[in-house]
Amino acid sequence: MRYEIRLAGIGGQGVILAGLVLAEAGVFERHYVVHTQNYGPEARGGTSISEVMFSDAEIDYPKTLGLDILLALNQDACAKNLPDMKPEGLVIIDSDLVEKVPWGKVVSVPFSRRAREKLKNQKVTNMLALGTLVPFCPWVSSRSLRKAISKRMPPGTIQLNLSALQEGLKLARRLKSSLKFDEIEGATEV
Amino acid sequence: MRYEIRLAGIGGQGVILAGLVLAEAGVFERHYVVHTQNYGPEARGGTSISEVMFSDAEIDYPKTLGLDILLALNQDACAKNLPDMKPEGLVIIDSDLVEKVPWGKVVSVPFSRRAREKLKNQKVTNMLALGTLVPFCPWVSSRSLRKAISKRMPPGTIQLNLSALQEGLKLARRLKSSLKFDEIEGATEV
Repeated sequence: MRYEIRLAGIGGQGVILAGLVLAEAGVFERHYVVHTQNYGPEARGGTSISEVMFSDAEIDYPKTLGLDILLALNQDACAKNLPDMKPEGLVIIDSDLVEKVPWGKVVSVPFSRRAREKLKNQKVTNMLALGTLVPFCPWVSSRSLRKAISKRMPPGTIQLNLSALQEGLKLARRLKSSLKFDEIEGATEV
Repeated sequence: MRYEIRLAGIGGQGVILAGLVLAEAGVFERHYVVHTQNYGPEARGGTSISEVMFSDAEIDYPKTLGLDILLALNQDACAKNLPDMKPEGLVIIDSDLVEKVPWGKVVSVPFSRRAREKLKNQKVTNMLALGTLVPFCPWVSSRSLRKAISKRMPPGTIQLNLSALQEGLKLARRLKSSLKFDEIEGATEV
């Protein structure tokens, strides 16, 4: 059993730190975890990718077999990574930054706008986005994510990051309860 | 051309953060970089491994082909990872925490003791250890490591981390100038 999540955005959106928190949350869940960041020379301002694999056994092959979840923070990050999806995988996008996606199962949340409006800080977009994973990903709980945030984030920012996580979780829960994936096509907004 | 560095220690020694800084320094050098962390359920207190690969072309195969440098912060981390070395690879160890190593090219530096004594803070052992890489690794400079530390570390701790890097660099430079690897056997202390 293996579960793969890829976070993709542009440099500066906090994708790598979000991956680190997700990976460490997986450790708290007692999974085997491999976390990989791939930087091209285009990383400065270009696409930034952070991938987290959970497994109940040691992971021998750290290359993608197929993504269960792609969390895409901008259009380019989304387009580039769709080819690596599992057929039944879920794409979660920032509805303000990603336009229509040629994929069946899409959840669309205005991450960065909500971070700006509700948390008054766009920097925590990454933690808000992590929160939206929780209702859709059986391998990680909000409890272990909170634990990982408390461990990994600079002390002065922990509360803000926890609030962002909670906001994302709330939005995604509301969305999930109203979704039937076999009925929708393309993106759905909260 | 590909260059592989593995950092290995126990949970809490800051191996993952050191890997992150090393990876981002590589980006500043305009390399392609893949950074992988592998956590087993033993990660809590057990061996923690962070691996950084530099290349001048895109990295298709993110699994170790052979380590150019193994930086081992404790005995177990050293023993477990020797089988993955390139024959001509270099092992850098904490001389207080790793005993004799069955390897030809070994550099031995009392990382944690120096961090405690010179920096008055054992937490920066990881950055001091990173500093010791520099004279032996042609793929990364102290300049780009300083840049990565300034970018990634919490603001209040940057100066301390930079000082630790500098101390490691100084120790390793002194050591390198007195070493001839074909003449030594086993560990050599600063």
